[in-house]
Amino acid sequence: MKVLGQVKKSVILGIISVIMRVGRCKLCGRRMIVHLRYANLSLCEDHFINFFENRVLRTIKRYKLLKDNEKVAVAVSGGKDSIVLLHVLNKLAKDMNFSLSVLHIDLGISGYSNRCRELVEKYVNEYNLELNLMNMNSEDLSIDEIASIKKLNRKLCSICGVIKRYWLNRMAYEIGADKLATGHTLDDADQILIQCLISGDMRQLYKLYPIVYSATHPKLVTRIRPLFESPEEDILLYAKIEGLEFIERPCPYASGALSLDIKKLLNEIESRHPNTKLSIYRNFVKKIRYLLDVYSEGEIGTCKICGFPSSVGECSYCRLKRRVLEYRKR
Amino acid sequence: MKVLGQVKKSVILGIISVIMRVGRCKLCGRRMIVHLRYANLSLCEDHFINFFENRVLRTIKRYKLLKDNEKVAVAVSGGKDSIVLLHVLNKLAKDMNFSLSVLHIDLGISGYSNRCRELVEKYVNEYNLELNLMNMNSEDLSIDEIASIKKLNRKLCSICGVIKRYWLNRMAYEIGADKLATGHTLDDADQILIQCLISGDMRQLYKLYPIVYSATHPKLVTRIRPLFESPEEDILLYAKIEGLEFIERPCPYASGALSLDIKKLLNEIESRHPNTKLSIYRNFVKKIRYLLDVYSEGEIGTCKICGFPSSVGECSYCRLKRRVLEYRKR
Repeated sequence: MKVLGQVKKSVILGIISVIMRVGRCKLCGRRMIVHLRYANLSLCEDHFINFFENRVLRTIKRYKLLKDNEKVAVAVSGGKDSIVLLHVLNKLAKDMNFSLSVLHIDLGISGYSNRCRELVEKYVNEYNLELNLMNMNSEDLSIDEIASIKKLNRKLCSICGVIKRYWLNRMAYEIGADKLATGHTLDDADQILIQCLISGDMRQLYKLYPIVYSATHPKLVTRIRPLFESPEEDILLYAKIEGLEFIERPCPYASGALSLDIKKLLNEIESRHPNTKLSIYRNFVKKIRYLLDVYSEGEIGTCKICGFPSSVGECSYCRLKRRVLEYRKR
Repeated sequence: MKVLGQVKKSVILGIISVIMRVGRCKLCGRRMIVHLRYANLSLCEDHFINFFENRVLRTIKRYKLLKDNEKVAVAVSGGKDSIVLLHVLNKLAKDMNFSLSVLHIDLGISGYSNRCRELVEKYVNEYNLELNLMNMNSEDLSIDEIASIKKLNRKLCSICGVIKRYWLNRMAYEIGADKLATGHTLDDADQILIQCLISGDMRQLYKLYPIVYSATHPKLVTRIRPLFESPEEDILLYAKIEGLEFIERPCPYASGALSLDIKKLLNEIESRHPNTKLSIYRNFVKKIRYLLDVYSEGEIGTCKICGFPSSVGECSYCRLKRRVLEYRKR
C-alpha cells in the first residue's frame, strides 16, 4: 500500500506540474503569448521576439545572404511582411555591419497608395534612413490608369509585378546597392513552388531560393529574401508584439487569384498537420532544387530601350509602357 | 443600313447557334452528359466513354506500359478505381493482345471484406477470368486482428499498405505475370507528389510514374498504373454510365489522414482552376522526374525469411508477421 501511495503521489505531482506548465513559456515560465505547433513550443512575448529574429538571422547566415559592409536596398510596400523585414534588418544592421536604404514605389492607386507611402515615410524617419521613392504617376503609368485600359490582355496583378520587379531592381542598381531585400515569406515560397508545378515554369522554380545571384547581367542586383523561412502567422504576431503599424487593407485591385487559393489551402493543411509549410520548402531546397540547375538562366540580354536586363530585345516594362502609350493615343 | 441588317442577322444567328450547342455533345450534338471543364468539352454518354477509354489507351502507349502477348495481373479491391481498371483492361485485352488475371486480397475486415470479395468474384465470373485470392485470415494476419493490437506503433493504413504491396507482388510473381496493374489515379499521383514534398521521400517521388520497372530484383514484378492520368471524378462517371457496381463505403478503419486532406484541397483548387491536377503531374513527369534519377533504387536485397525483395535483411511483411505473433503469445 505504501508503494501504491507513492505511485499516486508521483502521478498527482506530475499532473500538477503539467498544469503549471500549461500556458507558460517553455524557456522562462512566464505567461505564454503563443504556442508554435510546428515546433511544439510555447513562448512568452520576449522569447518569441528572440525566436523570430534568430530565425531570420539563421536564414541570413545559412544561405550567406549578406557580406561585411554591404549596402542593402530594402523594398518596403507598407504591408506587414515588408514592414517587419525593415524592422528586423534595422535591428540587425549595426551588429552585422551592413547599411540600409529603403525603396518604395508609389503605384498610384487612389485612396490606397498615399497611405502606404506615408507609413513608409514614417518608419524611414523613425529609423533615420534614406528613402528612394518612385512615383508611377510621374511615368504616366499608375495602376489606376492601367486598370482603366481594358485591352492589355494581361492580369493587373501580373502587370503590377512587372512594374515592381523593374523599378526595385533599377532603383537598387542606381543607388549602388549590393543586395535588394524583399519581404517574401515561407508562405510565398510554398505558394510559388506549387504554382511552378502547375505552370511548369522551371526557371522560376530554380530561382526559389533565399538568394538569387545577379551574375547573369551587370545591371541586375542580387536579390535576397531574409523572411523565406518565416511563416506569415509568425510575422503578423511579431508585428503586433513590436507595435508595428502596417497597411492591413489588401490592395483594392486584389482579386481571387490562384496564389491566394493555394496559400489558403496550404494553411488548412498546416493547421491539421503542423510543420507542413517549412517541410515542403526545406525538402525542396535540400533535395530537389540543386538538380534543377539545368534550368538556370545563362547570360541574360539587354533591353534596347532602357539598358536594363531583358531576355528579349525590349524588356517587359518598356513593352508595357509603349503599349499603354499606344492605347492612350487612340 | 443593309450592312447593319446583315451584321444584326449574323449576331442573332450566332446567339441561336450558341443556345443550340449549350447542353449538347461537341462531337455529335446529342444531349450532353458531362462538361469537362479541364478540356472545355461537353460530351454525350457514348463520346465520354470513348474519350475516357482513349485516354487510358494513350497512357498505356505513351509510357509503353504493355508489350505484345503479356500476362497482366490486375489488382482489384472492389473500389471504383480498380473495378473501372478491370473493366477497361478487359475491353482492351483482345485488341491489344494481352491476357488478364485478377488478384484480390481478403483483408479480413468483418462486415466489409466479404462484400468486396463477392463483388470481385462476380466480375471475374462475368468476364470469365482467373481469380487469385489471398485471404489474410489464413495467415492469421487479418486487419481486424492487427487493429486489436494496440502497441504496433504504426498506423493501420500503413500496415495495410505493407500487406497489400507484399502480397500483390508475390501473387503476381507466383502466377508468372509480366506486369502488375493497379488502379492508382491522377488524384493519387498528385497527392503522393505533394506528400513526398512534405516527407522528403525522393525515392518514392522518383517512382511516381505510370510504370515502375522491376530491374532491381528478380522477384519484383514491374508495376503499371494505366489510370495515372485519369481524374477520379471521370472514373466515377465512367463507372456510373457503364453500370458498374463497386464498393462505395470507405474502409471502416479509414481515418482523417493527410492523404485525404491533400486530395480534398487539390480538388478545391481544380474546381476553381480547371486542369490543375493534370498540369501538376504532367509537368512533374516532363520537367522534374528525370532529374531525380540520382534517387533511383540500385539493386535491392532479399528477405532472409521469404526470399522476396527487401532493402534490409527482413522484409516489412515478415517483420510485421513476426511482431504480431510475438504480441499474440503474450
